[in-house]
Amino acid sequence: MTKIRLKVIPLGGLSEIGKNMMVMEYEDDIIVIDAGLMFPEESMLGIDLVIPDISYLLEKKRKIKGIIITHGHEDHIGALPYLLPQLNVPVYSTRLTQGLISVKLKERKALAGAELKVVPPGGQVTLGKFRVEFFPVCHSIPDSVGLIIHTPAGIVVHSGDFKLDHTPVDGKPTDLSRLAQLGAQEVLLLLSDSTYAELPGYTPSEKLVGEALDHIMADAPGRVIVTTFASLISRIQQVIDTAAKHQRRVFVVGRSMSDTTRMALELGYLKDPDKVLGRLDELHGLPRNRIAFVTTGSQGEPTSALVRIANRDHRQLHILRGDTVVLSASAIPGNESLINRTVDSLFKQGAQVLYDKVAPVHVHGHGGQEELKLLLNLVKPKFFMPIHGEYRHLSIHAGLAESVGIPRDSTFVLEDGDVLELNPQSAKVTGKISAGNVYVDGLSVGDIGSVVLRNRRMLSRDGMVVVIIAVNQQTGKLIGRPDIVSRGFVDTRESKDMLEESRDLVVRTLDRSGKRPTEWDFISTKVRDTLNKFYYEQTRRRPMILPFMVKV
Amino acid sequence: MTKIRLKVIPLGGLSEIGKNMMVMEYEDDIIVIDAGLMFPEESMLGIDLVIPDISYLLEKKRKIKGIIITHGHEDHIGALPYLLPQLNVPVYSTRLTQGLISVKLKERKALAGAELKVVPPGGQVTLGKFRVEFFPVCHSIPDSVGLIIHTPAGIVVHSGDFKLDHTPVDGKPTDLSRLAQLGAQEVLLLLSDSTYAELPGYTPSEKLVGEALDHIMADAPGRVIVTTFASLISRIQQVIDTAAKHQRRVFVVGRSMSDTTRMALELGYLKDPDKVLGRLDELHGLPRNRIAFVTTGSQGEPTSALVRIANRDHRQLHILRGDTVVLSASAIPGNESLINRTVDSLFKQGAQVLYDKVAPVHVHGHGGQEELKLLLNLVKPKFFMPIHGEYRHLSIHAGLAESVGIPRDSTFVLEDGDVLELNPQSAKVTGKISAGNVYVDGLSVGDIGSVVLRNRRMLSRDGMVVVIIAVNQQTGKLIGRPDIVSRGFVDTRESKDMLEESRDLVVRTLDRSGKRPTEWDFISTKVRDTLNKFYYEQTRRRPMILPFMVKV
Repeated sequence: MTKIRLKVIPLGGLSEIGKNMMVMEYEDDIIVIDAGLMFPEESMLGIDLVIPDISYLLEKKRKIKGIIITHGHEDHIGALPYLLPQLNVPVYSTRLTQGLISVKLKERKALAGAELKVVPPGGQVTLGKFRVEFFPVCHSIPDSVGLIIHTPAGIVVHSGDFKLDHTPVDGKPTDLSRLAQLGAQEVLLLLSDSTYAELPGYTPSEKLVGEALDHIMADAPGRVIVTTFASLISRIQQVIDTAAKHQRRVFVVGRSMSDTTRMALELGYLKDPDKVLGRLDELHGLPRNRIAFVTTGSQGEPTSALVRIANRDHRQLHILRGDTVVLSASAIPGNESLINRTVDSLFKQGAQVLYDKVAPVHVHGHGGQEELKLLLNLVKPKFFMPIHGEYRHLSIHAGLAESVGIPRDSTFVLEDGDVLELNPQSAKVTGKISAGNVYVDGLSVGDIGSVVLRNRRMLSRDGMVVVIIAVNQQTGKLIGRPDIVSRGFVDTRESKDMLEESRDLVVRTLDRSGKRPTEWDFISTKVRDTLNKFYYEQTRRRPMILPFMVKV
Repeated sequence: MTKIRLKVIPLGGLSEIGKNMMVMEYEDDIIVIDAGLMFPEESMLGIDLVIPDISYLLEKKRKIKGIIITHGHEDHIGALPYLLPQLNVPVYSTRLTQGLISVKLKERKALAGAELKVVPPGGQVTLGKFRVEFFPVCHSIPDSVGLIIHTPAGIVVHSGDFKLDHTPVDGKPTDLSRLAQLGAQEVLLLLSDSTYAELPGYTPSEKLVGEALDHIMADAPGRVIVTTFASLISRIQQVIDTAAKHQRRVFVVGRSMSDTTRMALELGYLKDPDKVLGRLDELHGLPRNRIAFVTTGSQGEPTSALVRIANRDHRQLHILRGDTVVLSASAIPGNESLINRTVDSLFKQGAQVLYDKVAPVHVHGHGGQEELKLLLNLVKPKFFMPIHGEYRHLSIHAGLAESVGIPRDSTFVLEDGDVLELNPQSAKVTGKISAGNVYVDGLSVGDIGSVVLRNRRMLSRDGMVVVIIAVNQQTGKLIGRPDIVSRGFVDTRESKDMLEESRDLVVRTLDRSGKRPTEWDFISTKVRDTLNKFYYEQTRRRPMILPFMVKV
């Protein structure tokens, strides 16, 4: 009997939220699940976005049979424009997801040559030794799927991002009966979404938001401006439906919201049976309580329509007293202060503002603790790996698994790069491959390393001082006084004397050192230390100090 | 009849949380209420802290009769070390608050000459035309008060920071009957805490946390490590009480926690009837389920005891499997990611971690919507000014006031610096004085302006490039090739060719310009523009470019 060995390797999505990517490898076949990006943390100064390190995949490029995408959110598709040109394999997804991937690839000029294949929810595809079945799950974007992956070692279930909304707005609840069938067979491994593992209970249904919107559209004395994620198509549908019910026309504002709405209408994911959607030029003459807007800006993005409106900086739209603004979204971690500032500005403009803290105007797309336990109980996996979460989410999810009877040592709380090897009887971590953050900053991918970031951090704190020392090449003598250029350190006018004094200090340091400019390393260290000490004494600040010698 | 005119001027605490400060002025008398600091927002790079702009007070220095402090939190006392030396007036507070002020002034070497006067809760003090009565309120630090200020124009009530805990742990609920008495008289103006105006319902009692701690101390298989704010003395009391009940000794870890605990024991605000508090050297030999710790670090402060423990960087204490860590605090906005990282590290070390999202281990110290409405209904003010909150909190609080019958035009949602003038019949905003953020960075107060911050911001994003151009003073000719020094821009090794090319580009630019070095402004602008364009094309980044000419 040959040894059956399935490897499951997270390349992203564990310990850090975002840049989701899971690798499954069996003999000469590899499939990749999701290829997401992460938005940079505060400490990643100047970085545009973060994608997974795929050096492992590049080494085994010829084995890769395809990339499977569970749904169309950035943290599942966003790395494709950067990775696809390097890997050059087919991408499998549902139809809406494919549409969103095309848009993304086009934006980044990576669409040419991409092989995008549609698999419907409930459909399947065979990739080498893997047979992958797509099952519908309910999430905050239509056409989301989880995966049932039939492998020679056993069945692996990947939940995708999911919640168990029994009354979803787009009519497609998570397929619990298919999962229950699987539970009756043997499932080797479950990979399940941990994003909201901290939250007790159930995530409320999307219908709840519909009820809140219904009251708002009915009662608001003036216009209603709803902002949400462009991809949250079911939410846009609810705005259209409740607006229609209360005789309001709906106007879409903002480029990405317009693009997505148009695409969703064309593909049939969004419906406007009462023809309430209008063009902005039809606005004229409508009474205010017959008007609703849908717009981007739910994360306080500085260039979004809502933020421009809040700052009276939008060409067509500004707040009128009596307007009601609904932020139908929650904050992606890190965006809180931008969002708060936007809400404050809207209040200052005289709007009534409703947001998730003060009214039930948003539900998120991930299951809470009871839903996670239900999935575990239905699927009854032999082994369990919590995915999609920070370490605390994974740990708490592991605790939930234990509470429903999965032994603690059958659960694997891993970090990105850990290699889990399974056969039908056992599972263990057998190694670790390189898996980390690859930074995208401007045009280049991966050139920003820890040195550049450390420098940016240092510069951001106390600024910098460049010391320019001109030296006669022949004599080794100093020419004139050293020059000092500083930025971000002190107010150069107020601190003129202090800066002048530091120039003199450099002169004295150079004199005293008695070294020739050939010993530049020594001199520059000396100058740096002396100024560091002096500036710290004077200001309690530590600017970056860069001595530079010009030999003439 | 002379015109009765009372001015109420917020110098801090409106529109931005923190640096609370309220000025009341009547003819030749001024009193100041609170003198807080604000921790910097993300965008205030390198700034240590933010205090109010007191230029208005400095102009009217001789009128100021005293500063009244409502309680000992940083956002109410933190600016004193910076302002007191300039204002030099007596400070009135309750006893514990005075203790905390002394510690703070001592730290900053500003204690000498400070006149600190104690007024007990329920006591009063007359300052010029103002008679100020201190009434006890319940908040997350003992000895907190609100103020009843008798002025010739009428009574002004200042809530301080408060909640209406009917079963507080330190035995001092907010004095509702005194407030109800006032409601029977005429109250001219109510200033009331808006911090939690977004939250529906009531803030739960501190007792709730006691129950959670009781379960934890009883059930935890190993040691229990509780982290909270050093000033949250009632919480420390609850740890002592529940630990005593379950035969655990309590060890205090961390300097500020030890200092506060000692002071609170001495002043009688903290009690240890069962003598469970111990010194760390008594730890040896105790079974793990007989041990509890209290420590700082609830905000993920990098140098705090808990963070050192989480990073296995603490001298005396590290996590053992089976430890339970309780974060008995909530995140101060801006600290979320530091706290999350700490929780993740503790989980990785094998601890069970309980925090406010997953267990009822914390209640905050501010009233929710029902409490705010109750206060409004008891005090029945003629005019109302919501204080202590961002603009959205103040706006929502104004809405609550309207819901209990205070006409919208009797409520004043102001911003810092707005001057509200009142007489017994009317109130209106009559002007605006200078009131903004004063930045403290290292030793200096107020020297950091928008230029320095803008530079730090720019440096933090794409780093910087210094171009050093040596020129012969006599001939005006370039000496050698210009030098380029960059930091935080690109990986200088990987981008060596690009940087070299940019040196050549500078040479060509200088040649072509045909200008003499005397026209430095022209040349430097030219070099900056050329490099800006070149670097952006090559990298899509915009480093700060600093051309510098050395004349030899």
